[in-house]
Formats: sequence, structure tokens, C-alpha cells
Amino acid sequence: MTYDDQNIFAKILRGQIPCETLFEDEHVLAFMDIMPQVDGHCLVIPKRPSVGLLDADPSVFGPLFTAVQRLSKAVTQAFDADGVTVMQFNGSAAGQTVFHLHVHVMPRKAGIPPRPHTGKMEAPEIIEKNAALIRAALG
Amino acid sequence: MTYDDQNIFAKILRGQIPCETLFEDEHVLAFMDIMPQVDGHCLVIPKRPSVGLLDADPSVFGPLFTAVQRLSKAVTQAFDADGVTVMQFNGSAAGQTVFHLHVHVMPRKAGIPPRPHTGKMEAPEIIEKNAALIRAALG
Repeated sequence: MTYDDQNIFAKILRGQIPCETLFEDEHVLAFMDIMPQVDGHCLVIPKRPSVGLLDADPSVFGPLFTAVQRLSKAVTQAFDADGVTVMQFNGSAAGQTVFHLHVHVMPRKAGIPPRPHTGKMEAPEIIEKNAALIRAALG
Repeated sequence: MTYDDQNIFAKILRGQIPCETLFEDEHVLAFMDIMPQVDGHCLVIPKRPSVGLLDADPSVFGPLFTAVQRLSKAVTQAFDADGVTVMQFNGSAAGQTVFHLHVHVMPRKAGIPPRPHTGKMEAPEIIEKNAALIRAALG
């Protein structure tokens, strides 16, 4: 599969589609998942294009997962989480729906399973509220 | 939570408990999950100790996920997979059961969901057979 630069995350990176940004540097962009499976579900993507992890330049992994770590700490604080689930899907068979490498960061509470991925968008005011909590924790 | 060096992966790293090794270098060890949720389910761990991703030294992420990429390519070839699921759990609430940072690599076939994590060990001959397929793909 070749990279299609019309995917939604490529458009977000080019500023053609808005997102609820959490932080950004030269290597990565972190933003809210608009179809959250838990409150505070967010994403980190490398700016360098690849379909997934298998075709990524290995130089992206250090900055990408350092950002995942930073975000994991922030969501833990923001949502008083008991744990954090980190997931990364490659291929439709694995649940990938946007074909630009991305890592899911999900704060978890004991005994509360994630909601199924239904494709239903969360209300913007909920996304904004949760983003504000995470930004405050990022400092 | 402080790191407990009596966890099973620490014992594997010290050679006190056997594992079905796939590859190893100065930074990481890749081996078969003995309670696989799909055929070919395997794990990569950094040698540097941390409970999970949140307390890891960020220097581990580059080598760790470069190894995850290598293993993802190998399991795709070995099992003619349609996709690869990469998961990393932090805290019991997120499903973590061994408290040494580890990344799950699961080859996926379209339409076949992973089996639940039951805590049941797979037959050793199945693990060995699947490890041999992955080693052949690693070259």
C-alpha cells in the first residue's frame, strides 16, 4: 500500500482540516481522537509520512514514543487514570482506519472497558473540555 | 510503583527462566508470548528495566520500536498476515500483567478477532512451530 497524502491526518498536518491540538514539535503532532473509546482518548502522529509502522523510517520512533510517553503521563494526571493503553494498528484487518501512522493513547480506569469503535463522533464541547484537562496536565 | 526485579521478564533477561527467543541485541529481547491471543503473538522488551512506558528512559524507545517494526514485518511474512496489531499496556487497569515494559506484536487476519487473554498457556510444540516460522522470516 502506498501512502495517500489525501488521508485525514495528512490534511490535519497541512492545516486543511482542524483538530484539537495538544502539542506539536518538529517531529510529531498530538491531538484528540474525535471518536474516543474512553474519555481523554488521544493520538500522536509523526509528521514524516508513512502508512503505518512497517513502512516508517525508524528515525521517527524515538520522537514518536517520547511524545506518547509525555501524553501518557498527562492523561494519567488529567483523568486520575489507573492505567494507560497504547495501541497502534497496521492494516484494516488490525483496525486501522486512517492510513497515516498513528498511536492511540487511552487513559484507563479500573473495571471500565473501552467503548467499541463505532465511528460516531463525540460532541465537540466534550472533546474541547477533555483537551483542556490534558493541556493543563502537560503544563 | 517501583520496579520489581523478580518479575518474569526480568528472570527471562537474566536467563533464570527459559523463553522462545526470536532475536536479541544489546537493547532488546524479542520472544514468543506463551499465552498467545493469535497465532504468532510475540513480545519485545527493552533490557533496561522499567515498569512500563511512563517510567522508561526515553532512550529505549528508538531501539524498542525499531525491533517492533522488524518483528511486525517478520510476522506479516511468516503468517501471511493482513495486518499487525501493536499494543502496550500500562497498569493492571490497562491489562498489564507483567510489570516490565513490553510491546505486544500480533499478526492479524481479516475477520479473525484475537482470542481473549485467558491466562491459559499454549502447547509448547505450537509455540516452537510458530517461533520457527518467525525466525525463518527474520532471516
